[in-house]
Amino acid sequence: MIIDCDPGIDDALAIVLAHGSPALEIAGITTVGGNVELERTTDNALRLREFLGFTGVPVAAGSAGALLRSRVNAAGVHGVTGLGEARLPAPALPATGGHAVDLIIETLRADPGGVDLVAIGPLSNVALAVLREPRVVEWARGLTILGGSYTRGNFSPAAEFNIAADPEAAAIVFAAGWTVTMIGLDVSRRAVATRAVADRMAATGRLGTDLLLPCVRFHGMITAEEGPAIHDACAVAHLIDPSLITLEPAVVDVETAGRFTSGMTVTDFRLRDRVPNALVGTSLDVDRFWELLLAVYARVGEGLQG
Amino acid sequence: MIIDCDPGIDDALAIVLAHGSPALEIAGITTVGGNVELERTTDNALRLREFLGFTGVPVAAGSAGALLRSRVNAAGVHGVTGLGEARLPAPALPATGGHAVDLIIETLRADPGGVDLVAIGPLSNVALAVLREPRVVEWARGLTILGGSYTRGNFSPAAEFNIAADPEAAAIVFAAGWTVTMIGLDVSRRAVATRAVADRMAATGRLGTDLLLPCVRFHGMITAEEGPAIHDACAVAHLIDPSLITLEPAVVDVETAGRFTSGMTVTDFRLRDRVPNALVGTSLDVDRFWELLLAVYARVGEGLQG
Amino acid sequence: MIIDCDPGIDDALAIVLAHGSPALEIAGITTVGGNVELERTTDNALRLREFLGFTGVPVAAGSAGALLRSRVNAAGVHGVTGLGEARLPAPALPATGGHAVDLIIETLRADPGGVDLVAIGPLSNVALAVLREPRVVEWARGLTILGGSYTRGNFSPAAEFNIAADPEAAAIVFAAGWTVTMIGLDVSRRAVATRAVADRMAATGRLGTDLLLPCVRFHGMITAEEGPAIHDACAVAHLIDPSLITLEPAVVDVETAGRFTSGMTVTDFRLRDRVPNALVGTSLDVDRFWELLLAVYARVGEGLQG
Amino acid sequence: MIIDCDPGIDDALAIVLAHGSPALEIAGITTVGGNVELERTTDNALRLREFLGFTGVPVAAGSAGALLRSRVNAAGVHGVTGLGEARLPAPALPATGGHAVDLIIETLRADPGGVDLVAIGPLSNVALAVLREPRVVEWARGLTILGGSYTRGNFSPAAEFNIAADPEAAAIVFAAGWTVTMIGLDVSRRAVATRAVADRMAATGRLGTDLLLPCVRFHGMITAEEGPAIHDACAVAHLIDPSLITLEPAVVDVETAGRFTSGMTVTDFRLRDRVPNALVGTSLDVDRFWELLLAVYARVGEGLQG
Repeated sequence: MIIDCDPGIDDALAIVLAHGSPALEIAGITTVGGNVELERTTDNALRLREFLGFTGVPVAAGSAGALLRSRVNAAGVHGVTGLGEARLPAPALPATGGHAVDLIIETLRADPGGVDLVAIGPLSNVALAVLREPRVVEWARGLTILGGSYTRGNFSPAAEFNIAADPEAAAIVFAAGWTVTMIGLDVSRRAVATRAVADRMAATGRLGTDLLLPCVRFHGMITAEEGPAIHDACAVAHLIDPSLITLEPAVVDVETAGRFTSGMTVTDFRLRDRVPNALVGTSLDVDRFWELLLAVYARVGEGLQG
Repeated sequence: MIIDCDPGIDDALAIVLAHGSPALEIAGITTVGGNVELERTTDNALRLREFLGFTGVPVAAGSAGALLRSRVNAAGVHGVTGLGEARLPAPALPATGGHAVDLIIETLRADPGGVDLVAIGPLSNVALAVLREPRVVEWARGLTILGGSYTRGNFSPAAEFNIAADPEAAAIVFAAGWTVTMIGLDVSRRAVATRAVADRMAATGRLGTDLLLPCVRFHGMITAEEGPAIHDACAVAHLIDPSLITLEPAVVDVETAGRFTSGMTVTDFRLRDRVPNALVGTSLDVDRFWELLLAVYARVGEGLQG
Repeated sequence: MIIDCDPGIDDALAIVLAHGSPALEIAGITTVGGNVELERTTDNALRLREFLGFTGVPVAAGSAGALLRSRVNAAGVHGVTGLGEARLPAPALPATGGHAVDLIIETLRADPGGVDLVAIGPLSNVALAVLREPRVVEWARGLTILGGSYTRGNFSPAAEFNIAADPEAAAIVFAAGWTVTMIGLDVSRRAVATRAVADRMAATGRLGTDLLLPCVRFHGMITAEEGPAIHDACAVAHLIDPSLITLEPAVVDVETAGRFTSGMTVTDFRLRDRVPNALVGTSLDVDRFWELLLAVYARVGEGLQG
Repeated sequence: MIIDCDPGIDDALAIVLAHGSPALEIAGITTVGGNVELERTTDNALRLREFLGFTGVPVAAGSAGALLRSRVNAAGVHGVTGLGEARLPAPALPATGGHAVDLIIETLRADPGGVDLVAIGPLSNVALAVLREPRVVEWARGLTILGGSYTRGNFSPAAEFNIAADPEAAAIVFAAGWTVTMIGLDVSRRAVATRAVADRMAATGRLGTDLLLPCVRFHGMITAEEGPAIHDACAVAHLIDPSLITLEPAVVDVETAGRFTSGMTVTDFRLRDRVPNALVGTSLDVDRFWELLLAVYARVGEGLQG
């Protein structure tokens, strides 16, 4: 799989999950400006690669901003560095020279039907890949995104952050001819890290103390019932175990023209005679989701101790 | 109260409720093109007036269409006449000569602070009244609308029918300076007429057999658990007993520019430093709602038998 | 004729022309917020009525603002009072009690086919009249507007002031079913008051010294070749002598959705299979235009001296 | 120079001009879908390369369609092949393997400040180059486009074809940070091939009989005074002799949101405090333009005879 991301706290937790899961193999990580600026998201990806020890995986930087708009960011939610209170060591190895778009295109071209594309940040890189090489749509085994909503947003009442950050890119991606697996806020806002979750994160050694907890705690208040939502991990979890999230076919149109609704993923489940362009997540098995994550985190934590 | 409406099945049930409730007095009924064409909605209002026997209340016809757009209608949902299978006698008395806008303005001017305006169709008439005489905003005791949604729509994934039928009118109304009480789909779609409800409607004599049941049954399949939603009656019920519906302050912006979201009521409950322009219904006490309606319907039914 | 206006310097000169022309009779003057606020435009209309002595003509105030937008104004161009340096005496008589929309509707209803409507300000009042009583479209002998452009604007590169001040109103008016005579900037910007024109204005006695010159001079630098354009007078001049301005049929659509083009009158002279909704002014006989105006101004000036 | 084009009749005449002018050197030709489909424009570029004999210049195919929209084409104006009645031999050599965007980026990177980019089709390729590698804005000596208008369009009353074919691409290009030289319709529609021009084309041997005349004649009726406009050649002519076209600084915004104005280049010559993002052509020395072209065509024609 290729992970296109903007780490970002929940991106980091998604990357740990992807790295630690025996079912997945990371073929590349591409970065995009989003939660914080591109320099930060790329630097964070590089720090995570070395901290977790998958230095054989290429990391390539991509789009700093949106295709047509000024980029918004979410440093208030993710901290100035983008990783909350986590302070991973500076990376020794640089990103690859090429652009994220090239890494996406070349990786997919090299193994048609064999690589999943998972996008958990704004869709600028994916859109550029589609525009630059429309055949990526055929080459990718699938595209799973964390973004959008069929009810309410978090960036605005209508729009979710990743889509609102580059609505035109999202419009290009949803219209490209593939069936996008859209795991949106409706699902991901249930993936809440409660105190019980945090306690088990604390038991993963350095992984917990250096990364998971400083991330999660920055993200929001943790109580017995409530806590911050770990959105991005839902997309990766879906690839590991598709039974965690129920999907329903829909036609998703991305609003780019609205005055108050720009970036909304307008989701129509009444297909009538239209071919669905998306499978949309509608429910999450929260308990099994956390069992999956915490089991992987425990295994990764053990590896880091060694 | 003035009822601005487009009967319409649920409009009819709302009018019966307003007429039969001792807590309310109907000062006027104004009609608008909406569920069906203006000629039909006006004709239906006149038929209801005579069938129910409140011939002293003026009925005035208003806008046939939207301010700027082609009007959509919902004859598929309300039947060709707009009252489903109900066949009330043709009216003997005509509508008043003036325009709905004049009736609204004059009624409110005559009793500042004393009259509630309840709008349960597209907001074309209310918008024109505001444009023609901005002081109606001060004169009205309040404006309660049945329309909009803060989650999903029924006309489109984003928009509710009454607002989508004239988004610019709704934008004018929400920006006029008053605090709009918005009872939207989020609430009204729970006001479902199940078999138990229908059975009690059947026990109201001519009211039930000639009006309520032929309306409700046309509107949708009725089972023990499910049935058609009687949207418009929620707005009137709220005026009779404000404890039925929980309201929360919000800033509501009506999208007029979107490609896929036109007519959406974008509802922001995070007020920050903005003054709310709406109180938005967020929950409905369904049992007590039906108790209220069915008690009034029983009383009205008895009166018709006499 | 009814003059719907926002005096305004060029409105004042248009009103003098309409008043002084034996070919025209003013049936009413309605005011709208535009060049300056509604209170000013109404006050100016009342001052002009008494200064010129047509106190039998009703003046009614209308819309203070645009249907959906914040109103812009042009006080920089017309001065704080709206009449440049002119200081006419305060009016003794008030405006009529009703709303401009009522005066328009009633005047047209009273004489179907007999009254021209001339709108030389933002089209808010005319749009409300059309919405309130769609039959005005049939009743009016015609609608002539000063506004729009088929090339470039003056409010923005794309839009002319009167249309940009209320684009939705203009969209309603152009879509109402009549054939609008649109005298736009393309024509009116040629109606320039040069030094030769100003000299002849100076020879009209009190009319010149108290009104015409203090208006025109405020409006712009006057040289032998150049000077301020007296836009609004073109619309009235067209009614007096249709041979002054060449008209061509066109389909005019008013842009309401553009980010940079809101208020543009998109004018298509290639009709193809569409029915034109406008006759658009494309050339002005400047010499004969000024001969007409200055002859009328001379006559009005003589009357004021007496 | 790099020529990004969609041949296209006037593209062909522009390419002949660039090829034949001693002042210019073609470093690459990139193609885009526009006047006709990408397969045709690429094929035409290849045919022209061999017919004219500059086979050392790379030709690379780029975007088939617009970034976000369905592509329009203009086959009615350019013929099914895109070159009117001209029938050049099928090319022996293929296009380069890479994408137009890569050729643009690599050529500019290889010689910063040394290469002009001339875009005479829709701006999809240029926009993608800017998105993929923002430094092209610094590397290019300049960007000259044939497209847009500050008065009226040809695709619609508001928009010129090349911009209307991909408004979002144009918006990206104009906002990229360079000063775009915009030669628009205002200038290029004066570059009319009259009978006198056609007669001199006829005297250029095979060039005239096989290419120039079958192109020009297809494009429109030729009389002593009138004829088809050879738009694209204006952009190349400007690079050869900047004195042919007067340029004025302006802020150009591309409308992407309008209902009737999408693709309009809204051009504000009143800079106020804004930094101009364009130099806009405002006049053309038509006689000297044709002298330049016909002299080059004569020279190219002689070369082909040899």
